[in-house]
Amino acid sequence: MPQWDTASRSLIEASQLARLQLGLTRILPRNRFYEQKMLSGDRTVTITRLSDLAHLPFTMKRELAASQEMYPPFGTNLTYPVSDYIRLHQTSGTTGQPLKVLDTPESWDWWADCWRTVYRAAGVGRDDVVFLAFGFGPFIGFWSAYEGAKLLGALTVPGGGMDSLQRLRLIQESGATVLVCTPSYALRLAEVAQEHGIDVGTFNVRVTIHAGEPGASIPATRARIEEAWDAKTYDHAGLTEMGAYGFSCELQQGVHVNEGEFIAEILDPQTGQPIEEGQTGELVLTNLGRWGYPAIRYRTGDLVRHGGHNCGCGRAFLLLSGGILGRIDDMLVVRGVNLYPSALAEVLHRFPEVAEYKIIVTRAGPLDEVALQVECPPHLVSQIQEELHTSFSLRIPVEAVEPGKLPRFELKARRV
Amino acid sequence: MPQWDTASRSLIEASQLARLQLGLTRILPRNRFYEQKMLSGDRTVTITRLSDLAHLPFTMKRELAASQEMYPPFGTNLTYPVSDYIRLHQTSGTTGQPLKVLDTPESWDWWADCWRTVYRAAGVGRDDVVFLAFGFGPFIGFWSAYEGAKLLGALTVPGGGMDSLQRLRLIQESGATVLVCTPSYALRLAEVAQEHGIDVGTFNVRVTIHAGEPGASIPATRARIEEAWDAKTYDHAGLTEMGAYGFSCELQQGVHVNEGEFIAEILDPQTGQPIEEGQTGELVLTNLGRWGYPAIRYRTGDLVRHGGHNCGCGRAFLLLSGGILGRIDDMLVVRGVNLYPSALAEVLHRFPEVAEYKIIVTRAGPLDEVALQVECPPHLVSQIQEELHTSFSLRIPVEAVEPGKLPRFELKARRV
Repeated sequence: MPQWDTASRSLIEASQLARLQLGLTRILPRNRFYEQKMLSGDRTVTITRLSDLAHLPFTMKRELAASQEMYPPFGTNLTYPVSDYIRLHQTSGTTGQPLKVLDTPESWDWWADCWRTVYRAAGVGRDDVVFLAFGFGPFIGFWSAYEGAKLLGALTVPGGGMDSLQRLRLIQESGATVLVCTPSYALRLAEVAQEHGIDVGTFNVRVTIHAGEPGASIPATRARIEEAWDAKTYDHAGLTEMGAYGFSCELQQGVHVNEGEFIAEILDPQTGQPIEEGQTGELVLTNLGRWGYPAIRYRTGDLVRHGGHNCGCGRAFLLLSGGILGRIDDMLVVRGVNLYPSALAEVLHRFPEVAEYKIIVTRAGPLDEVALQVECPPHLVSQIQEELHTSFSLRIPVEAVEPGKLPRFELKARRV
Repeated sequence: MPQWDTASRSLIEASQLARLQLGLTRILPRNRFYEQKMLSGDRTVTITRLSDLAHLPFTMKRELAASQEMYPPFGTNLTYPVSDYIRLHQTSGTTGQPLKVLDTPESWDWWADCWRTVYRAAGVGRDDVVFLAFGFGPFIGFWSAYEGAKLLGALTVPGGGMDSLQRLRLIQESGATVLVCTPSYALRLAEVAQEHGIDVGTFNVRVTIHAGEPGASIPATRARIEEAWDAKTYDHAGLTEMGAYGFSCELQQGVHVNEGEFIAEILDPQTGQPIEEGQTGELVLTNLGRWGYPAIRYRTGDLVRHGGHNCGCGRAFLLLSGGILGRIDDMLVVRGVNLYPSALAEVLHRFPEVAEYKIIVTRAGPLDEVALQVECPPHLVSQIQEELHTSFSLRIPVEAVEPGKLPRFELKARRV
């Protein structure tokens, strides 16, 4: 792998073109899913410049799901015979029926290597002890984080089959220096610790790495995690059907796309045309090393802001400013204002007294009405409403509920 | 690796000697634990014949525990610097405080390779789909089974973070052909299936592989698992502090020690002298590939019967007839009769109506009194008592309890 940390745009793009061309020769015509998408009728695939990618069709999640329904259990997005695959994952099922996704040994190594990039950017190395607070089921979650940590040579501590208190004890006893979990669960662990008179700030953890939710790129949420754990907090973005594509650098401005292994486009969700730097649109990704289960121009449904290629960290990799802002479908339109759940989180987490919250959405035709339930002292309600008004010019009703009343989450939080 | 399936005793023993000699040069003097055990005072270690092993001191679990207490968190049984290790395990804590055990990449590969032997003996190959019904926490459990299945090229489906019904659905949907779990849990899964009107006998599972308890080598328990799953059932034996040392062959007579990777001794627990073929004694093991965390003449505390080297399967590997019979400490002495929990299980599982059971032990000085609680129809009590009397010449009180009243176990069952 080249030293991408210092690679120029031209080197990155030359590599992307070469990888894409090579990949297509491996995929076509072995992979029935892409053969039918790309070669049906009189279509041919010719990629001579990177911009030719824009002539290829999009891949939609519902197409993968339909293929799996028609050809169970694994569908047709397989470049090799099933006997060549060694891992089965399922998507989390956040949107619809879980997809089954397979990886070959080569693709699985590639996943791990993508996570190695996440760790390196967070300054994690072979002397670290990496605790993974994760259930290790069929959802890919932090499985590749586990494999990546092994590849890096770090000491891995898998935290499946344990409750929060058992995990806290093992994080402490093993001298873990790195905690990998969802942002919600990092806060939940700190909360459980406090209930038991344990101060996680005195643990050896110096880095936390998160995924599954936008939390680690939301400044107020990140600040809260960093304060609780006395650690520096990094974000990561990945998708079961895509790979581990994003990581944050020490400047914590959002998520870089690992453009050594993925091609990113940010498109207007309506027109499908590229947006300009500074604007927001849908992230569309192509992976460049998972040839057993490729994803070409995959519409992630994730809303991101184009942050350019000039991050202060020196990497030329595309920056998604503020990380994943939310799902395209999650956008609420309240009295003409576009409102994302992550923006509400940013405001609520400015208040140290706020533990959990829930967003109540009422839809009347195309219009959304939003109200909040917030675990906080009742006297805080008016301050929160004022802060929400300042931020969004909206009057949003806030109801104070007793601490501990709202649900906690180990994997992805569902607060809407 | 040689083709051990057809290797002669002389080849096996020559390889053991060479591996042991090589291993000792790697361990000594880098490993402080064994340096102090073996080289203290005027001791030297000279191994010129395999029988010289008998001059080396035993390793006791309590020594490993004491070393860890004195030098937390990992103790001194480390041949390399901690930064060379990539995996942390904890013992299940069945006997005392959990031990922390580390593996290097090399030792971890070796674990996986030992499990490959288990799979091969069970006829499992790269076309199989292996479902692991296991929590994937810090207890090694079936972690190495997962790694071994990947190494074999089989499709692995990790079943962490799921309840029994979710696991059943995924076993079915993924077309799993191999189920890996404790024997108790295989029966528990079948029970849950029945409660939901699912017949696991119609699933694709054709092989089940078990460990953690003697069940799969107890004929009546094995028959019950095989009937429920319409599959062939294999046993496996391993220890966190030792490795995956045992497997059963298609003749299902017990557990073979993988003597390509381990040296086995069966000793009289009192005198420490070898016992004869056909007799029972304590299994003492030495591993030959886990140089990062070696175990030399480790007293397992497991009671086994010496089954000789002439299994009908053609392997010359030592057979432990009937598998692991129990813990040395578990032996009950009831009115002069030596009684193991596994022998009680064998009798109880002859009755198809018996679901769960619990052994109630009352100790008065050196004498044990035993009573049983059994989930069965009340009319069965006298038949069970009669069968127990025929088997052990003991009158053991049996109480019938309602089905579902006794605890179920996902990992090691504790029925005593």
